[in-house]
Amino acid sequence: MKRATFYHAGCPVCVSAEQQFVDAIDPGKYEVEIVHLGTARNRIEEAEGLGVQSVPAMVLDGQPFHINFGASISDLKS
Amino acid sequence: MKRATFYHAGCPVCVSAEQQFVDAIDPGKYEVEIVHLGTARNRIEEAEGLGVQSVPAMVLDGQPFHINFGASISDLKS
Repeated sequence: MKRATFYHAGCPVCVSAEQQFVDAIDPGKYEVEIVHLGTARNRIEEAEGLGVQSVPAMVLDGQPFHINFGASISDLKS
Repeated sequence: MKRATFYHAGCPVCVSAEQQFVDAIDPGKYEVEIVHLGTARNRIEEAEGLGVQSVPAMVLDGQPFHINFGASISDLKS
């Protein structure tokens, strides 16, 4: 089972992307986790380490994909 | 069956996103079509009409999502 992690920050762009993308991922191939970096601030560093520069972003099997643009990671830190 | 259309232009960013995303989409929910706008130039207008501003982009059930950034639609026209 591969891992799909959707990082977001609760913004409108994020919520829209979450609903469509998480629903579209094949549950037979991917275990999906949704991480709200606004509340789970202790995971911002993990997201950055995976190459996430803005949210919403989906990390598929270790590879980061930025989907549209909601907020930058640096804005979430301030 | 919902429709997922992946628009790209053959760029390295596009190919990487295509391999991961198209593979991750649930085939039980979505019928996936891949459109290379560099060769299928007659479909650029269709992509723009769906709100696609850059490639690679995935339109899920009519809603456009821009994934990372490879090239803008206006660059493909020139």
